Amino acid sequence: MAYAAPELADLDRAARAALDAQTIELPSWAFGNSGTRFKVFTSPGTPRDPFEKIADAGQVHAHTGIAPRVSLHIPWDLVDDFGALAAHATEHGVAIGAINSNVFQDDDYKLGSLCNPSARVRRKAVDHHLRCIEVMRATGSTDLKIWLADGLNYPGQDDLRQRQDRLAEGLAEIYAGLDDGMRLILEYKFFEPAFYATDIPDWGTALLHCSALGERAKVVLDTGHHAPGTNIEFIVAQLLRVDRLGAFDFNSRFYADDDLMAGAADPFQLFRIMHELARAGALAPGSMINFMLDECHNIEDKIPGQIRSVLNVQEATAKALLVDAAALAAAQRDGDVLGANAVLMDAYNADVRGLLADWRTDRGLPADPMRAFAESGHLAKIAAERTGGTQAGWGA
Amino acid sequence: MAYAAPELADLDRAARAALDAQTIELPSWAFGNSGTRFKVFTSPGTPRDPFEKIADAGQVHAHTGIAPRVSLHIPWDLVDDFGALAAHATEHGVAIGAINSNVFQDDDYKLGSLCNPSARVRRKAVDHHLRCIEVMRATGSTDLKIWLADGLNYPGQDDLRQRQDRLAEGLAEIYAGLDDGMRLILEYKFFEPAFYATDIPDWGTALLHCSALGERAKVVLDTGHHAPGTNIEFIVAQLLRVDRLGAFDFNSRFYADDDLMAGAADPFQLFRIMHELARAGALAPGSMINFMLDECHNIEDKIPGQIRSVLNVQEATAKALLVDAAALAAAQRDGDVLGANAVLMDAYNADVRGLLADWRTDRGLPADPMRAFAESGHLAKIAAERTGGTQAGWGA
Amino acid sequence: MAYAAPELADLDRAARAALDAQTIELPSWAFGNSGTRFKVFTSPGTPRDPFEKIADAGQVHAHTGIAPRVSLHIPWDLVDDFGALAAHATEHGVAIGAINSNVFQDDDYKLGSLCNPSARVRRKAVDHHLRCIEVMRATGSTDLKIWLADGLNYPGQDDLRQRQDRLAEGLAEIYAGLDDGMRLILEYKFFEPAFYATDIPDWGTALLHCSALGERAKVVLDTGHHAPGTNIEFIVAQLLRVDRLGAFDFNSRFYADDDLMAGAADPFQLFRIMHELARAGALAPGSMINFMLDECHNIEDKIPGQIRSVLNVQEATAKALLVDAAALAAAQRDGDVLGANAVLMDAYNADVRGLLADWRTDRGLPADPMRAFAESGHLAKIAAERTGGTQAGWGA
Amino acid sequence: MAYAAPELADLDRAARAALDAQTIELPSWAFGNSGTRFKVFTSPGTPRDPFEKIADAGQVHAHTGIAPRVSLHIPWDLVDDFGALAAHATEHGVAIGAINSNVFQDDDYKLGSLCNPSARVRRKAVDHHLRCIEVMRATGSTDLKIWLADGLNYPGQDDLRQRQDRLAEGLAEIYAGLDDGMRLILEYKFFEPAFYATDIPDWGTALLHCSALGERAKVVLDTGHHAPGTNIEFIVAQLLRVDRLGAFDFNSRFYADDDLMAGAADPFQLFRIMHELARAGALAPGSMINFMLDECHNIEDKIPGQIRSVLNVQEATAKALLVDAAALAAAQRDGDVLGANAVLMDAYNADVRGLLADWRTDRGLPADPMRAFAESGHLAKIAAERTGGTQAGWGA
Repeated sequence: MAYAAPELADLDRAARAALDAQTIELPSWAFGNSGTRFKVFTSPGTPRDPFEKIADAGQVHAHTGIAPRVSLHIPWDLVDDFGALAAHATEHGVAIGAINSNVFQDDDYKLGSLCNPSARVRRKAVDHHLRCIEVMRATGSTDLKIWLADGLNYPGQDDLRQRQDRLAEGLAEIYAGLDDGMRLILEYKFFEPAFYATDIPDWGTALLHCSALGERAKVVLDTGHHAPGTNIEFIVAQLLRVDRLGAFDFNSRFYADDDLMAGAADPFQLFRIMHELARAGALAPGSMINFMLDECHNIEDKIPGQIRSVLNVQEATAKALLVDAAALAAAQRDGDVLGANAVLMDAYNADVRGLLADWRTDRGLPADPMRAFAESGHLAKIAAERTGGTQAGWGA
Repeated sequence: MAYAAPELADLDRAARAALDAQTIELPSWAFGNSGTRFKVFTSPGTPRDPFEKIADAGQVHAHTGIAPRVSLHIPWDLVDDFGALAAHATEHGVAIGAINSNVFQDDDYKLGSLCNPSARVRRKAVDHHLRCIEVMRATGSTDLKIWLADGLNYPGQDDLRQRQDRLAEGLAEIYAGLDDGMRLILEYKFFEPAFYATDIPDWGTALLHCSALGERAKVVLDTGHHAPGTNIEFIVAQLLRVDRLGAFDFNSRFYADDDLMAGAADPFQLFRIMHELARAGALAPGSMINFMLDECHNIEDKIPGQIRSVLNVQEATAKALLVDAAALAAAQRDGDVLGANAVLMDAYNADVRGLLADWRTDRGLPADPMRAFAESGHLAKIAAERTGGTQAGWGA
Repeated sequence: MAYAAPELADLDRAARAALDAQTIELPSWAFGNSGTRFKVFTSPGTPRDPFEKIADAGQVHAHTGIAPRVSLHIPWDLVDDFGALAAHATEHGVAIGAINSNVFQDDDYKLGSLCNPSARVRRKAVDHHLRCIEVMRATGSTDLKIWLADGLNYPGQDDLRQRQDRLAEGLAEIYAGLDDGMRLILEYKFFEPAFYATDIPDWGTALLHCSALGERAKVVLDTGHHAPGTNIEFIVAQLLRVDRLGAFDFNSRFYADDDLMAGAADPFQLFRIMHELARAGALAPGSMINFMLDECHNIEDKIPGQIRSVLNVQEATAKALLVDAAALAAAQRDGDVLGANAVLMDAYNADVRGLLADWRTDRGLPADPMRAFAESGHLAKIAAERTGGTQAGWGA
Repeated sequence: MAYAAPELADLDRAARAALDAQTIELPSWAFGNSGTRFKVFTSPGTPRDPFEKIADAGQVHAHTGIAPRVSLHIPWDLVDDFGALAAHATEHGVAIGAINSNVFQDDDYKLGSLCNPSARVRRKAVDHHLRCIEVMRATGSTDLKIWLADGLNYPGQDDLRQRQDRLAEGLAEIYAGLDDGMRLILEYKFFEPAFYATDIPDWGTALLHCSALGERAKVVLDTGHHAPGTNIEFIVAQLLRVDRLGAFDFNSRFYADDDLMAGAADPFQLFRIMHELARAGALAPGSMINFMLDECHNIEDKIPGQIRSVLNVQEATAKALLVDAAALAAAQRDGDVLGANAVLMDAYNADVRGLLADWRTDRGLPADPMRAFAESGHLAKIAAERTGGTQAGWGA
């Protein structure tokens, strides 16, 4: 029959290698409480410290096999002994990934961090990043991820251009502080928490700053950080073309930076993004692009929320790898609009869940990670064990 | 294996009946040339009159089996003898569907039709609708479909509220002109061609007017006629709840009223819409909702563009009918966010193309309508035959 | 000269009466801390209880003369003795206005309040509103303002239609609990905190529920609660036309529900809104529309932020009242697009600040309230006095 | 009194020089018919050829004194003798400005021009631009303005990245064809007429290509070509910072690329844009930024529509030049959010119409250009004279 579900054997060698090599980095903060300005709901068993967050991340990797790293957020994940934290991670089968700075939760940052009109505050913000680099050294992390909340709420509040200049200056000092082999990865965001102007609102701005810094500065693309209607896969293609795509923050959105589970809001968009990556060879083993999640599990359970997200990214990837590239190129060359679209949709419409269940079974992983985790009783276990103390959260 | 592709036998009796009963009405204008304000591209073989448009529509039905009606647009489809046109339709296996009025292409309508400040122009617009009702009588059509281009380009240009009153008055006279068994179906649109205010911009306004008119006035939902981010399936659910959903204009969009092929831009959204219909029993045989396409094939071939659209709607429908309603209700009742979402996604992720190929084969239809049409040589045939004359278009 | 600034004498009698009668209700929560999910910044002198909030609101009224009421938010403003609070308000020259319910900050409301799948939680949410009605009795308030955070984050999470039915049922019980002379005013919001579907996302939904409830149920229009590009003044005109506009929540926005100061983001839009109100007589003395602010002063000082907002609304109002209605109607009747637009813009382009300074001077109010407040030293005074305790905030 | 209308004497020397030096370039096509895909309305007296368009443009300059150039659009404005056209322009007091290429109205361009998969079509598109450069030589124009309609309607239709490479190649050949002293100015657009992906969708893409080309390649910012909510003044500031802002296409919008009169939809935004220019010295005499209009007068009269637009830009400019830069800088330095915003709003709220009437009177221009033009009887004159022939339009 024509529509038999694809099997592992349907992937060519390069596609299979890409699937096998894929990893998704988990955000430590996804295991803590998060929410909206209206309410942060809690859930039993939520981690109370970075060690428990990493343990939970280990569960995601244990069930999916493709989530071997955890990003930290400083100061949320500050510990006295990062060596102990790294060892703890190893015990749970994962490693420390990118280090995220945080220069938006101190009262000093009310009017910005690296862009602040006050030289004192800018100094403080640069110093925080230099300390993050120390954490990188202590944990073996190679990516310093910078997202700034800097921006303005009112026209006239500050000088848009001077803020760019201050930003460039601060980034330059931070970049200079990196060791060889470390990267600075710079995130942009359309709006929130600033509501009139954001100092790095788009990929163009992030790229300008990265280009000014040097080769080891790359752009982070958060799939929820764009204006309504933005074609994200175009940006992916463009950043790949100029070799400046450093990392992804995957999540999904219907409205703004909703931080929903990746693939939940627009699975077709996620597939198109993965297809641009596949088409450019950026999923191949050795790619320097860090695929991370950045999500808020406001109402759903956190560990299975992460598992679901990882699986959604993997499913989109498998579909993208199934695209018949030769047929697609031929239809495109012929200007066959319907034919070219059909080649892409053929892969999207395929059901790859069986193929991926086989892939997991081959590795001794559970065929159905969601069910396996549910049946493991882990949520009940941590709910019972983690009593007392203060649950981790954003501390906003 | 867990992820075997669904088969026809997996549909329960009601679902199977809904699938069997589904029909999609085709717009005559989709077979003529259309485009943007920048350019209308032509293609060989484009119909030169309503008879040829209907013949092309017959091709879509012949290949898909679920497109047995054609909407007409007056005056684009004005003919001297509508009886002959109806007979012609019968010969091509289809029937005349809804009659669409057009009060936006005469210079008199520069400042609106039913909302125009000029009583003379409003009279003319009402009279046009009364003539459309005569066409309905001549063709056996039962739906008078009204989309107005009325609106303002500049603040202050006209009085927003008086225009609503004029609109109500005009619609009332038109409604009074309907025979028993005829419906007035009223479309809303967020913007375009008016760029400051549109006189029926949202479902709330359309509903207010329909409620004022009477039982046989219903709302038309065009999937491309909403503000960015609008949750369309919510509107579907709401209009079904108050029994005022009269018809759909299916198409798809990334930005504005792009009029792309249904299911091309956001297939998950189309599925969610079909699920709200399925859940409410609105796909059952005997439903009074008219499912229509309204699209512009600016660059793709028109007949296969329509076939593709019909198939996309049918695929979304089959997926929606596969949703395990009992499991969904149970998860919702339990507040199991991830579980309830998973039930829905299970159906969406299924590949129903085989199931639908079987459905067609059972009816003596081609398993793969796109391929069958391509192999039929029909496009080459009409390109060769339809020489001379003027290709049909919007005449803008 | 043609462009002399307008004076009070340029307002006709009705316009002058409207200006004199205008009042803006202040939200108690604007005087407490508020922020984003990323950070709530504090400021010295922020009130620690409802009494201090009301004292601060009194400052706004003392300087502007048109802000004589304060809305309360329950439970944020719960006190043991509401009689004492009302007396305290009187001492500060203001009165208690609308009572806002809050059914979004208890863990029970994670999946909704009146729409929750759990009957127990719905019962609790209804009971909270009945208690709010008791507060109304204790304070003399006549408006019960309901904004619900209810909605879904994921497709399938709950049944869209059943939630509407539950909502209707809960609202009916609450409405039945109102005394004669009390109103239920119902707010809609496009999104946030729910990110897939919101249960009252648009004016159409709010209107359907109000119509089902009865005459004393009216819609609240928050200017920040719409999809991008929505023409808000159209909604104002439409709700006025069907006599269901109950109240405004003024604020302004560039992106989402930014809750910036009214008039700060798009002063022209605010003017157009006020013009629709003026044109419909809805600014006249005796109008039953409650004009309220609903804002978050995340980074600016709170009391002057409120003063600025009140002044911005008043300036837009004065401009709207200066529109030459006869000239506008004549140009509209003639289909004079540029001429009609020019009449409107003439009023918008006028500088009414002098006129309003005179208006204030006539009343013994400061000509320049911003400067007068700054010079009063009040911020320093409360910063010095209000030490210890916990600053009020949303408690999210 | 504090709010006396500003006078010319209130402008400092630099501001006065900027006001005196300002010029707005008019688009020849604004004088021909334009419209939407639904209808192009005509008006009596519409030009039938480039000579008549230029004569009409001369009227705008004669009444405003700041519109001394006219952009041409090739092939819409192709004439046999460009020398004669230039001489005709001189007679009417204007000069030929930028030359706009047009590679979107030939059937060959259905799938793109410089990005087309066909080498033959790309060759044709490059050649068209080389012919435009010849027109530049013939008319003395120094700006080659390129806006491409290139893009995709469906995912998979063509290869996003290869299209960028083809684009770079085509632009390089065109750039190489420029004479010294000529510039290539490259426009970006969010969407339309392509509805899935546009090949130059944002400033980042335009900048990447300009940077690759050389110093004389600059970005054109059309105020209607952005995603909803985009902060345009930020882009202005950023492009000025990297010295790549080449030109503006002014117009205004509520929804998409509505092409309404500049300043009509959001006058505050236009002011903020002009303020970023003023703040950066980019309005000073000698600035190489070409300020152009690009509008569609769908329903309003064309010549007064252009006059109104020119005046709106000038009014926004005058307000921007009135901003108290020292006070603004001081408030910004102090982190005084409300104070800094107030300095900006003070200038915006001023009524500059009297000041500009004086400015015109000083030059022997009519104090009120709209009235003077209306009283001139010019529209009636051209309606009477221009009979027969075919009115100019986009020819879509």
